[in-house]
Amino acid sequence: MKNHFKKIALLLLVVPMFLYADEPAKVADPVAENAAAIQTLTVGLDTLWVLVAGMLVFFMNAGFALVESGFAQSKNTVNILAKNFIVFAAATFSYWAIGWGLMFGDGSPYLASEGLFFLGGADNSPAIGDAYQGVYSSMNWTGIPLFAKFFFQLVFAATAATIVSGAVAERIKFHSFLIFSFILVALIYPFTGHWVWGGGWLAELGFHDFAGSTVVHSAGGWAALAGAIVLGARKGKYLPDGRIKPILGHNMTSAALGTLILWLGWFGFNPGSTMGVGDGSVMAHVIVTTNISAAMGALAATATAWIILKKPDLGMILNGTLAGLVGITAPCAIVSPFSAAIIGAISGALVVVSVLGFDKLKIDDPVGATSVHLVCGIWGTLAVAIFGYEGAPAGVDVPSLLTQIYGILAFGAFIFSVSFALWYVLKLAGGIRVAEEEELSGLDLGEHGAEAYPDFSVRARG
Amino acid sequence: MKNHFKKIALLLLVVPMFLYADEPAKVADPVAENAAAIQTLTVGLDTLWVLVAGMLVFFMNAGFALVESGFAQSKNTVNILAKNFIVFAAATFSYWAIGWGLMFGDGSPYLASEGLFFLGGADNSPAIGDAYQGVYSSMNWTGIPLFAKFFFQLVFAATAATIVSGAVAERIKFHSFLIFSFILVALIYPFTGHWVWGGGWLAELGFHDFAGSTVVHSAGGWAALAGAIVLGARKGKYLPDGRIKPILGHNMTSAALGTLILWLGWFGFNPGSTMGVGDGSVMAHVIVTTNISAAMGALAATATAWIILKKPDLGMILNGTLAGLVGITAPCAIVSPFSAAIIGAISGALVVVSVLGFDKLKIDDPVGATSVHLVCGIWGTLAVAIFGYEGAPAGVDVPSLLTQIYGILAFGAFIFSVSFALWYVLKLAGGIRVAEEEELSGLDLGEHGAEAYPDFSVRARG
Amino acid sequence: MKNHFKKIALLLLVVPMFLYADEPAKVADPVAENAAAIQTLTVGLDTLWVLVAGMLVFFMNAGFALVESGFAQSKNTVNILAKNFIVFAAATFSYWAIGWGLMFGDGSPYLASEGLFFLGGADNSPAIGDAYQGVYSSMNWTGIPLFAKFFFQLVFAATAATIVSGAVAERIKFHSFLIFSFILVALIYPFTGHWVWGGGWLAELGFHDFAGSTVVHSAGGWAALAGAIVLGARKGKYLPDGRIKPILGHNMTSAALGTLILWLGWFGFNPGSTMGVGDGSVMAHVIVTTNISAAMGALAATATAWIILKKPDLGMILNGTLAGLVGITAPCAIVSPFSAAIIGAISGALVVVSVLGFDKLKIDDPVGATSVHLVCGIWGTLAVAIFGYEGAPAGVDVPSLLTQIYGILAFGAFIFSVSFALWYVLKLAGGIRVAEEEELSGLDLGEHGAEAYPDFSVRARG
Repeated sequence: MKNHFKKIALLLLVVPMFLYADEPAKVADPVAENAAAIQTLTVGLDTLWVLVAGMLVFFMNAGFALVESGFAQSKNTVNILAKNFIVFAAATFSYWAIGWGLMFGDGSPYLASEGLFFLGGADNSPAIGDAYQGVYSSMNWTGIPLFAKFFFQLVFAATAATIVSGAVAERIKFHSFLIFSFILVALIYPFTGHWVWGGGWLAELGFHDFAGSTVVHSAGGWAALAGAIVLGARKGKYLPDGRIKPILGHNMTSAALGTLILWLGWFGFNPGSTMGVGDGSVMAHVIVTTNISAAMGALAATATAWIILKKPDLGMILNGTLAGLVGITAPCAIVSPFSAAIIGAISGALVVVSVLGFDKLKIDDPVGATSVHLVCGIWGTLAVAIFGYEGAPAGVDVPSLLTQIYGILAFGAFIFSVSFALWYVLKLAGGIRVAEEEELSGLDLGEHGAEAYPDFSVRARG
Repeated sequence: MKNHFKKIALLLLVVPMFLYADEPAKVADPVAENAAAIQTLTVGLDTLWVLVAGMLVFFMNAGFALVESGFAQSKNTVNILAKNFIVFAAATFSYWAIGWGLMFGDGSPYLASEGLFFLGGADNSPAIGDAYQGVYSSMNWTGIPLFAKFFFQLVFAATAATIVSGAVAERIKFHSFLIFSFILVALIYPFTGHWVWGGGWLAELGFHDFAGSTVVHSAGGWAALAGAIVLGARKGKYLPDGRIKPILGHNMTSAALGTLILWLGWFGFNPGSTMGVGDGSVMAHVIVTTNISAAMGALAATATAWIILKKPDLGMILNGTLAGLVGITAPCAIVSPFSAAIIGAISGALVVVSVLGFDKLKIDDPVGATSVHLVCGIWGTLAVAIFGYEGAPAGVDVPSLLTQIYGILAFGAFIFSVSFALWYVLKLAGGIRVAEEEELSGLDLGEHGAEAYPDFSVRARG
Repeated sequence: MKNHFKKIALLLLVVPMFLYADEPAKVADPVAENAAAIQTLTVGLDTLWVLVAGMLVFFMNAGFALVESGFAQSKNTVNILAKNFIVFAAATFSYWAIGWGLMFGDGSPYLASEGLFFLGGADNSPAIGDAYQGVYSSMNWTGIPLFAKFFFQLVFAATAATIVSGAVAERIKFHSFLIFSFILVALIYPFTGHWVWGGGWLAELGFHDFAGSTVVHSAGGWAALAGAIVLGARKGKYLPDGRIKPILGHNMTSAALGTLILWLGWFGFNPGSTMGVGDGSVMAHVIVTTNISAAMGALAATATAWIILKKPDLGMILNGTLAGLVGITAPCAIVSPFSAAIIGAISGALVVVSVLGFDKLKIDDPVGATSVHLVCGIWGTLAVAIFGYEGAPAGVDVPSLLTQIYGILAFGAFIFSVSFALWYVLKLAGGIRVAEEEELSGLDLGEHGAEAYPDFSVRARG
């Protein structure tokens, strides 16, 4: 019987197949056969984990879409959902086309120069270490296929772009955001990413960022801050008499579900950054520190909000959770659970203060993205030096506080200024902000000619 | 200490246990011990992946429920959610009772005849190849337990039934849909599925459909098309003067979240169709082609909608994503990422045109299920022949375009005509469409005596 | 090039690395090398599965939050979402601080006394069996790191607390629930859990509860029942003339999505309770019995509701699904698919009758948590003795019905009375119920000063 699936299976099962055969084929060297089968199993297991972790990070798109739209007004829901969709689609293309190569291609400590486009460089993954002979040698420490490395890094890159979306929500033109996201993922994010994860000068300096408090979160946060400043505040947010008008989210069910999806996704983000399974101990350590930090972030934000705002504010609870997650992202692998609890608690308190502080500065960030991702991303990067313990895992040297500050400043200086310039050019080139009447009636009608909830009666906000 | 869990653990750990023992038991042949442990690990790893992939496909039920209800009116939400729940529950029973056996049981190339009921046939899985001695030999290429094979195929079968749900929404009687779904999953879907995945005549012909553009998606699509035709359009959709009234979805948050859940689920659907891990390379390849096609589908649909409808329509963005996913389902394992980009882009453009086209034909499909699953399912099946490259993976022969067309026509002719007849018989036997006044007031009150959102004021649609 | 990630990778890859080396290092004994690599792979694979299963159970927090808020009124949505968030955050801390040690620490069959705080006891996991030399020896049957054991058990413990949340919804003070949850997870749940999973006296007696129908679900259910009684019914639920006023859920989209998320989560809950992969057969068996029971629960509840209430009630379909899942939780590993179908069907019918019965008793449980988790938890525990077959897996003795009843009564007597006393003390100490006017206007405004949906017009309920 001719069956294509059997043929496909040959590749999958070629190593272990002999194990089931009634009469095993004569093998010259059964010990070497076992070793080869073990190699296949190891690569397969590591690949499985990295892909599953990548799926969890992919699912964070749903989390970001729900948190951002939930925290915004119903009249901008279609726009926000569309933005979140299109940003991942665009990121898929731009990171494939150029971002990956620019981040992981060999070259100088400052700039990649080989294998730049469409994963087109030489590569013999899953070979590792000295056996690796390709142009993406900064990733030669993980023994998985090139496409698995790419998928995992792609979903990280898209996260950075999605962070921006929240801070510029409710007033940005759809196509301006699309252009900025494309360039961010294609050029800006991988350029700085190369410095750390691409084996560049910050890596050489000893800068440590396990899963991306700086490389991903504060990177996105700086770009978001630049966008929020260039765009300006939403109409009616900061009143002439100095009062700040709260613009409540339209759907706290969305925001809460989105936060839980992000929490789940972080179990791919942080433990998946092992990019391999090994004996499972690093994964297990990272999931525990990640979860404790998130929980303590939620508890500390609740307490802080209760003290300052006199009530357990749900928005602050949600942002406190996310703050705890961002804060632990850099140090998760080299701090103890106790340190993780402190890191998370400080993150949760910090985010409440930061949200109130940005409002004092009249920098309008509808969902608190800058407070969560930039402020706590910086904090988490510092926490590496403060709480990291020597020798774990496998002899990682804990960097000095100065090294970490150096990395933070380098990212901030580069990404903020380049993003600011890019937003400004886009502004000059045709405007990035919707017309005032469109902002008032909502971007859903103005940009998309649609409503998110056409069956429900809307009431005017107070 | 007597502890049941230790006893259960014996089965799980019997092979590796000796590894931890302080003083290892004397083993006659440590090389053979290693080989046996490797066998257990391989089966365990493959089973883990297939089950996790099956869970992701299961979760697509949530995606379908949200997309369908989100694209429909609020007054039919309870009905749609109930339909989506009950269809998976019924599919579980009917695929267990008869569907699996009819699809994978041995027999002729046209019809299974052994092991038909309740997984009751002989089976010595996870043995593979010639070592397999059971009645489900078309699945002997994957070395996992029978129950794992069943679970994965069950969630596929349920998907086909769920596709129908969208096209017949907002006017079908609850029990009519239940009966149709039961028969579809028990008899119709597995009958044609046997031709391809059950090792039947289309498999022998060389027809290639890796993860089900035809076997699942266009199969569900043909049944959906038949249902939409027999039912007729919703009242007020096609006006006497020739105008087409858009009936907007009531909750775009639901629709967008549902689409992201489906995108996630497809990472089980396509990469999971390897039904094993091997060295991870096929999984990694498939997840990259799947994701690129989805992203390009979203981008192409956005562009096409922007050109035709003059706005970036969110509904079209979502359907474009799903179109890209359906289109890549058949060819995902044997096309390059570049080809995947083209396949996805064409899918995304196609779905926009198709949705508008079905409306011209006055075939009313509230969620665009026929455009997504039938039209793009056909396109993806053709794309196998157009873009498939020889020799990958493991010497799969790329079928000719004629072979693929042959399979498409066979599925279309059989499923459309049988489904049409079944819908018609149900119509004669007592009617499949709710009364006009019930359609106007909503199926939630009429069929379920309930409302989905009793706290919110509803406004009349324009 | 100095790269921290390479250093981290050393730990992960130390065993398999030699496999890729161009010139393999001289190894003294390649057979022993293979055995060591197999050991690492086994621990890694088992850890991966337990962590992924734990993530799925973690995601049940989203399911509970959506089911509970969806079944409640919109005016209490923020409160319910906040409760569900904070309960998991608090559980993370309290189970880490004391709960884990009290449940799994060595000691007497009645009480743990070693390694009580912050995972602080001696432990040499992943060593198993006699090779394990630590103070958490009741968990020495699974060869995974301590942190992986902890994460999996933590998400279980949090589930028990979350169950309570639903039964006390719409009238409990936020801080009262927080205090109760903290004590439940720190002290009550682990105290009884020790009796079974901690190797205590019920384990010695032969009591069998594979994944927690009693240990988790009825435990949470008893605490919920006590809370519902001490709190009393919501205002206007039971009218003076004896009529019972239905208080419909405000968002059936939330409730249905939440139920599907819980169903997905249960594929971690039950199959994950293997806490290892082995050859995959137990996992595959458990996922099939779990899914069949859920499906039959949905179908039986649909039928029962159709007969009693004359309509296919969506709320009952959802609770029927959950009932089937709770019912199969104890017996899932040692019953056949046919038995699972019967267990699920009885669960589905039972939950409908139970929901109506609790209303007759004027015990007000807004979401039916007691019917789902307590009643079906008891039923599932009994089903072990009724449907369990000897010898599967690995020689588990099926307990007698009396043994199971003994365990059920012990849990009920202890948890109900202690919970009742705790609720009562909290009531005396300052009240656990919000003021009547706050209950009428909603806890969102009263406890949190916020609204869940500030854009939508609310209509008065009939």
